[in-house]
Amino acid sequence: MLLQSLREEVLEANLELVRRGLVLYTFGNASGISRRDRLIAIKPSGVAYETMAPEHIVITDLDGRIVEGELRPSSDLPTHVELYKRFPNIGGVAHTHSEYATAWAQAGRPIPCFGTTHADYFHGPVPVTPRLTSDEIATDYERNTGLAICHLFDQLGTDEISAVLVAGHAPFCWGPSAAAAAHNAVILESVARMAYYTIAIAAGAVPISAELHDKHFLRKHGKDAYYGQVNSK
Amino acid sequence: MLLQSLREEVLEANLELVRRGLVLYTFGNASGISRRDRLIAIKPSGVAYETMAPEHIVITDLDGRIVEGELRPSSDLPTHVELYKRFPNIGGVAHTHSEYATAWAQAGRPIPCFGTTHADYFHGPVPVTPRLTSDEIATDYERNTGLAICHLFDQLGTDEISAVLVAGHAPFCWGPSAAAAAHNAVILESVARMAYYTIAIAAGAVPISAELHDKHFLRKHGKDAYYGQVNSK
Amino acid sequence: MLLQSLREEVLEANLELVRRGLVLYTFGNASGISRRDRLIAIKPSGVAYETMAPEHIVITDLDGRIVEGELRPSSDLPTHVELYKRFPNIGGVAHTHSEYATAWAQAGRPIPCFGTTHADYFHGPVPVTPRLTSDEIATDYERNTGLAICHLFDQLGTDEISAVLVAGHAPFCWGPSAAAAAHNAVILESVARMAYYTIAIAAGAVPISAELHDKHFLRKHGKDAYYGQVNSK
Amino acid sequence: MLLQSLREEVLEANLELVRRGLVLYTFGNASGISRRDRLIAIKPSGVAYETMAPEHIVITDLDGRIVEGELRPSSDLPTHVELYKRFPNIGGVAHTHSEYATAWAQAGRPIPCFGTTHADYFHGPVPVTPRLTSDEIATDYERNTGLAICHLFDQLGTDEISAVLVAGHAPFCWGPSAAAAAHNAVILESVARMAYYTIAIAAGAVPISAELHDKHFLRKHGKDAYYGQVNSK
Repeated sequence: MLLQSLREEVLEANLELVRRGLVLYTFGNASGISRRDRLIAIKPSGVAYETMAPEHIVITDLDGRIVEGELRPSSDLPTHVELYKRFPNIGGVAHTHSEYATAWAQAGRPIPCFGTTHADYFHGPVPVTPRLTSDEIATDYERNTGLAICHLFDQLGTDEISAVLVAGHAPFCWGPSAAAAAHNAVILESVARMAYYTIAIAAGAVPISAELHDKHFLRKHGKDAYYGQVNSK
Repeated sequence: MLLQSLREEVLEANLELVRRGLVLYTFGNASGISRRDRLIAIKPSGVAYETMAPEHIVITDLDGRIVEGELRPSSDLPTHVELYKRFPNIGGVAHTHSEYATAWAQAGRPIPCFGTTHADYFHGPVPVTPRLTSDEIATDYERNTGLAICHLFDQLGTDEISAVLVAGHAPFCWGPSAAAAAHNAVILESVARMAYYTIAIAAGAVPISAELHDKHFLRKHGKDAYYGQVNSK
Repeated sequence: MLLQSLREEVLEANLELVRRGLVLYTFGNASGISRRDRLIAIKPSGVAYETMAPEHIVITDLDGRIVEGELRPSSDLPTHVELYKRFPNIGGVAHTHSEYATAWAQAGRPIPCFGTTHADYFHGPVPVTPRLTSDEIATDYERNTGLAICHLFDQLGTDEISAVLVAGHAPFCWGPSAAAAAHNAVILESVARMAYYTIAIAAGAVPISAELHDKHFLRKHGKDAYYGQVNSK
Repeated sequence: MLLQSLREEVLEANLELVRRGLVLYTFGNASGISRRDRLIAIKPSGVAYETMAPEHIVITDLDGRIVEGELRPSSDLPTHVELYKRFPNIGGVAHTHSEYATAWAQAGRPIPCFGTTHADYFHGPVPVTPRLTSDEIATDYERNTGLAICHLFDQLGTDEISAVLVAGHAPFCWGPSAAAAAHNAVILESVARMAYYTIAIAAGAVPISAELHDKHFLRKHGKDAYYGQVNSK
């Protein structure tokens, strides 16, 4: 069986979405990529999490064609494929319908950076794609969802926001690994929830300053990071 | 004892409502029907879920008269009966006072389709009945609740929305089986919650396009469905 | 030891408040009364629920003087005493700071009857007391809290609403037993939560009709009740 | 190993934040101080709670220099240090990003005292610091966070509010011990949640009277307290 450890990591990332309450029934999907092998490992479509095992993870090539696996891959696979093409340094993608992030996506509003929790993870507001056109929906819908995300990031000109809201749909997150992508999905939901509360408390709430945003993002990311134990020796 | 396996399925559907946090104490009820036997199996009224067993499920005929069972059936049975008459293809009905769906029912507002989660399950806004009249309340109240739902769907002209909000009361859901009805009740609550959040984030939020709505509903339902493993072989 | 079974029932009612998530730490208190013995059994003040046992329940007379018990009774005892005097048919009282009911109390707004869940239990809006005056706060504060509730019900002229919101404080509930009082506290919190959601969905939401309110209250209470198994034989 | 019992108490306070749902992943931190030894014990930065043991707690001097410990201390240590200097009677500090308290901090609004739950713990509204300036962020950011809190309390002229909201960031709480600080963090979140609900129910909700505020604060704190068992013998 190909890529045993990647299969296990992808399974674990999917289960993390369950444990954190981000998915209902068979909703959601996480994948990982082996850049060396040019293979993607992704959750099968519509299978119960309770009985999912590494052998159920579907292995595909970088165009999403099945290389190994009895089951059909997640129907969102073409979106994952486009993200892996667009962001050459990422190792995992996670997609959920977590309720607060999805509500922002449904409302068609980016999530402003109202506080340091957000700044610790995402270097800017979490953006929202335009709504897909009828043509984009009619043919290659899931691939066009991915292309809409890629186009949005081309315009934004940043790779330091590892999350996006697809208008009228839900969030996608990514990271250096499947585990990191799932972790970002969990954080995004908390950030989405707090932003929701914030505008209810103060309709005119304003984002934190660029200086505070940079301070928090950079104390966790990049060469001068000093949060956690990573650089402590 | 009649219909052992239907009893077990109906019991299990009722317990699913408990596990998913949709019911308090003895609230809620799910039923199933055997079209062949022309019999309905339904939860008894006001009995604790913790001790409920298949033999407590009440068996009635298609007019709601008890055929087998020591206990009184759910007081909402006449509503279930009308739904089974109106929708000849359904196999189960579930009723809860799940809090977000109930709030939409109390507000008297249909739940707009703000996103693909909704579109995956319900092919249109989840409609709300008119308020019952004094006469409808005075006599045969529970049956009139069912008739109000049936009349609403006659007007809507669709059978692809397996859920309804009864104004000032709560939701009813249905499906091909008792399990499917309970599953729809769980999804409806999530959809109701996200719609609630959506209008709080953007008071003027607009539904998704008809194309996106169709795309998601039809990728899970009907002859060209490609979500899950059902058609994968 | 006096009143062993009442002690156990009161302990159990207090623990029900914990299990249902209505209390934080040592918040909340439930009591029961033996009308025959003219004695009240109430939770001790500020004691951890985890280690509470029947012998910790404090027994007092109808004026709140300790008859048996090493511990100090709940500081809200004088409020319970006034409720027992005012409502001669009740057997238990429960007080929590459950968060949604407390929010309505803090907002100083009665909870309108927006749906049948409310109507199943409370025969009218859940009323809110006026704010206590400086004099009522300065001396015999807890007793004056009880008197404010009693005065409010004198004005309302009904005994069919077994719950009240004390303005700027929190709810008190009661019933035929300590268990019933705790049960009502749990239902009140759910009703308060759904009413909160309802006004967020529709600011101008209107209560259900008097006919529907009566129908639901009377199908569960009084001589013609037909909900549950109580009258089924 | 220095300060075994303080290490255990600090570990336990950190775990209480987890048990009460106040922290996600490695978020949050609690510390304790030994005034006699002039040493602080604080959670390490970015370490998983599941595997944290007393030996992982970092011991520092009163200027935040490590005295014993292999791990890097929480990056918020300099904020804790300033609080210990400013409030000579406190024994513990707790910091979380608990979601409702953080939302008030993000909105930049103090939490008004809308009810007796708040009054039982905090003798006035929970205040919010001004936003930090670019200079305060650029150098010694975490220390300046602490100084902003201290300056705010200098202006308020009270030591009877053991909690603060740092604008655009999150709450800090303190108390006579690490356990008490964590306890206050839990209460603050409940109070923040109820205040959030209160303004949603009534946009113009008003705080409770000074008399009621004093009554509740003083029945739990100070020489005439009569809540709980502390003074009952």
